[in-house]
Order: sequence, then structure tokens, then C-alpha cells
Amino acid sequence: MMDTPTLALGPLLHEGKAKRLYATADPRLCAVEFKDTATASNGRHQVRLPGKGKLNCQISSHLFTLLEQAGLPTHFRGLLGDGWMLVQPLRMIPLEVVLRNRAAGSLLRQLPTVPGQPLEPPLLDLYFKDDALGDPFLSEARLDRLNVVTSQERIQLETMARQVNSALHQALGRLDLDLVDLKLEFGRDGSGRLQLADELSPDNCRLWDQRQSPDSPGRILDKDRFRQGLGGLVDAYKEVSQRIQALGLKPQHHGSRVRL
Amino acid sequence: MMDTPTLALGPLLHEGKAKRLYATADPRLCAVEFKDTATASNGRHQVRLPGKGKLNCQISSHLFTLLEQAGLPTHFRGLLGDGWMLVQPLRMIPLEVVLRNRAAGSLLRQLPTVPGQPLEPPLLDLYFKDDALGDPFLSEARLDRLNVVTSQERIQLETMARQVNSALHQALGRLDLDLVDLKLEFGRDGSGRLQLADELSPDNCRLWDQRQSPDSPGRILDKDRFRQGLGGLVDAYKEVSQRIQALGLKPQHHGSRVRL
Repeated sequence: MMDTPTLALGPLLHEGKAKRLYATADPRLCAVEFKDTATASNGRHQVRLPGKGKLNCQISSHLFTLLEQAGLPTHFRGLLGDGWMLVQPLRMIPLEVVLRNRAAGSLLRQLPTVPGQPLEPPLLDLYFKDDALGDPFLSEARLDRLNVVTSQERIQLETMARQVNSALHQALGRLDLDLVDLKLEFGRDGSGRLQLADELSPDNCRLWDQRQSPDSPGRILDKDRFRQGLGGLVDAYKEVSQRIQALGLKPQHHGSRVRL
Repeated sequence: MMDTPTLALGPLLHEGKAKRLYATADPRLCAVEFKDTATASNGRHQVRLPGKGKLNCQISSHLFTLLEQAGLPTHFRGLLGDGWMLVQPLRMIPLEVVLRNRAAGSLLRQLPTVPGQPLEPPLLDLYFKDDALGDPFLSEARLDRLNVVTSQERIQLETMARQVNSALHQALGRLDLDLVDLKLEFGRDGSGRLQLADELSPDNCRLWDQRQSPDSPGRILDKDRFRQGLGGLVDAYKEVSQRIQALGLKPQHHGSRVRL
């Protein structure tokens, strides 16, 4: 029996709060390691939650696959074993694009809204990805001042973000998972084409379980369990992962494992 | 010798942090009393500064007169004695329109800018006037959600705000007063016409004295003296008032005094 081929990791390119990005021997591919840490308040609170990285990697690879099948370009290039994913290297755009299908989180303190209030059409909020400034909320005029996208790219990015949100909202809804809001990040490939990057997991969105009563804390299946000190985060992510398997998607496996 | 006629005050209609608004016997006129209080941090810090109300009333009446002469409609209808002004009653739009000619204040924490950096064209920021929410910053998408102006009205309001800023920036510049930024509020009269309301004083703008060296705290002639604990606020406002008198504007006097 043959050994599984291995892919040699290159240098660590970037370490974020929840992931590490490595170069590989293949310049067209990077490897992403999903960490077992959960952070809140811009990294001030941090805890280790064994199993979380692997679950987020599974969930993300399924949802990226779903989007690819819907014709939406993403950086996902295959699984690489538990908690590892291959992606296309991109020049990242330093924006967080947040789609809100319902009012929750910071929005409740910034617009006169009630928790869970539907937002139709979904509200699109842009934030400047900058740790030192605390990822400030942007108006169009302030975005223009940053010079990080042209106005044509901004329209492309917003259109694509709405398509991603719509596809995920629909697919997750069929699993009784209510996609409340969603944070997306985008990058450009070598030819300047916009691609969805980062991850698609309950770390980056709010998911409410429609099989639970609206006031039950058990309804929350996302990182708010950690932010609100509810516990049970890994079990909630397992539930999400299991339901998403039911979609029958087959995320591509790279057929090799990472050699550390 | 005849007594000065008096104008009877009606009920108190509104009390803000720096002004009180009263009805008068004439339904086409309200009386505004400028208070001697200075507040910061959304009203959490407050102090009494005798003379400030009268100075802000003088400065505002001159600047409203300047704008009226430039063809920009304001609510100003005449002085009514020290610290009192007559205005046209308006249905207020719950927005703060901030024009920024240079980077200062909160912007420094929200965009990568350096203090005093010129912003060309001036940056226009909108805030939702809501004490409970702390006057949150708005994007266009969030403004749309509030339903406080139509998109046509928003364009009118922004155009007028830019014209006001431009006229004041130019006139104050001739007095060696650098208008760094400026907060405006607007309302609609009975026929729906947009008018500039509120006040035009160093409480609502940043003014730097171009006769002082750039790093001298003496350069600051606005409410930042209070916010930064520099003292000397009333003297600074006196300096501003005296320079503005030099413009030779003659704010209309109502010819009566208020009867309390």
C-alpha cells in the first residue's frame, strides 16, 4: 500500500486570530491551518477549544464548494486533512463586508432596531480591516478616501457579497439554520479577478437554529456562544457541521497531507 | 424716551445641552436662549462658563447673516438681546452633518490620518442624532434604512452643507481662523424648504488660530479647549467673536427684548 503523498509547507506567511497561512512548494497554492482558539473583543479575550479548528475547516470547505458549484469564485482549492485547507494565494482587499439578514450584535447599538428584526434587502456594511483602528465602520465617502478599491471594484464586490449571502442563506435555511449575518473578505488573483477568501464558518456569521424556540440560548450556533459566555461552542459547531454534511457536497481533497 | 418693546415667551419647547428653545406670541418665531454651559462626552461632563452663551449667540448671528447674504437659507430671524436669538420654527431632520476640511478629533481614530491633514474635497460625514444610541455614524445604506430623508433631500442637504462650509471656510480664513471641521443641522420650514438651523459657534466646529504656531495649544479657539482641559475657553471665544465683528456684518436686531 502506497503512503499518502505529502505537501511540504513553506514559510508562515500570516498568522491571524483563528488561522495560519503557509506557503507551499507549489507557488499556486497556500495552506491554511484552522486553529483551535476562539477570540473576542478584537483579540483581548482568547481561549483554546479543541476540535473547533477541524470543524471550521469542514464547514468552510463545504460552503466554499457550494458557492463554487453556484458559479461564485472562491479561493478554496481542496482539503488537506483535518483542519487544513489549500487555497489560491490572493492579494487581499483590507475590507470586511458584512451582510445582515436580521438585526443582531453591534447593529442594535447603532441603528434603532430590535434583535432579530428582518432587514430586507439585507444590509451591507463595510469595515476597514485595521487592528490598530479597531476595524472602523465605513461610509462610501470614507471608503473612497482609503483608495483600497476602485468604484467599479466596490460594485463588483458588493454584488458578489450579496450573491454569496443569498446562496448561503437559502442553502442553510433548508437545514433549519437561519443565517442572521455574515462577514466576508475578498482578494484578487494574479489576473485581478475578485475571489471570496477567508473562511465560511460560525466564527464569521450568526446562525440561529430554527428547530429551537426563539428565546432559547440553545438557538445560538455561532461564536456568540463564546462572546456571551454560554459555553457549548464546539457542540454547536458540530451540529452545524453535521447538518451541512446533509447537503451531500463533496469538497475536493488534495490527496496529500501536510508535512510539518 | 420709549421703553424697548418686549416679546412674550411661550412654553419651553426643547432643552438641549447648550440652548433652550421657546415658543413666542408670534407662531412664526421661536426664541433661542444660549446657555453658559459646556458639555463633553455626550453630556457626561458639564461645567458653567459665564459669558459663553452670549458669545456663541453673537458669533452665530454674524455667521448666519453671512450665509443669508450669500443666498443660503438659515433659520436666523434676528437678535433679541444678549444671548437670545429669534429663529423660524422648523421640523428638524435628526442628522448631524459634519464637514471636515482637515483631519481632527474622532476621525483620527477611524481613518488612517494625521492631525491637521488636509481633506480635499472636504469629507462629509453623517451621524444619526440619537442620544440613546450615542449619535452613531451612518453609511448611505444605514441612512436609507432610517427613512429620515428622501434620496433627493439627502443630495440637497449635502450640497447645501458643502456650500455653507465653503462660505464659512473662506470668510473665516480671511480672519486667520482655520475652519478645521464643522457640525451642521438642518430643518424644513412649513413649505418643506431646507434651512440651516442650530448654531454656528466654536461649540460646533474646530477653529485653529493661524496667527499662532501650529503646535501651540493657544492655536485652539474652540470647544476642544474644554474637551482637552486646556482652560481659557471664554477668552478664546471672545477672540473669535472680535475677529468676526471685523467682517462688518450687521445681524438684524428684532428691536424688542425677551420678557421672561
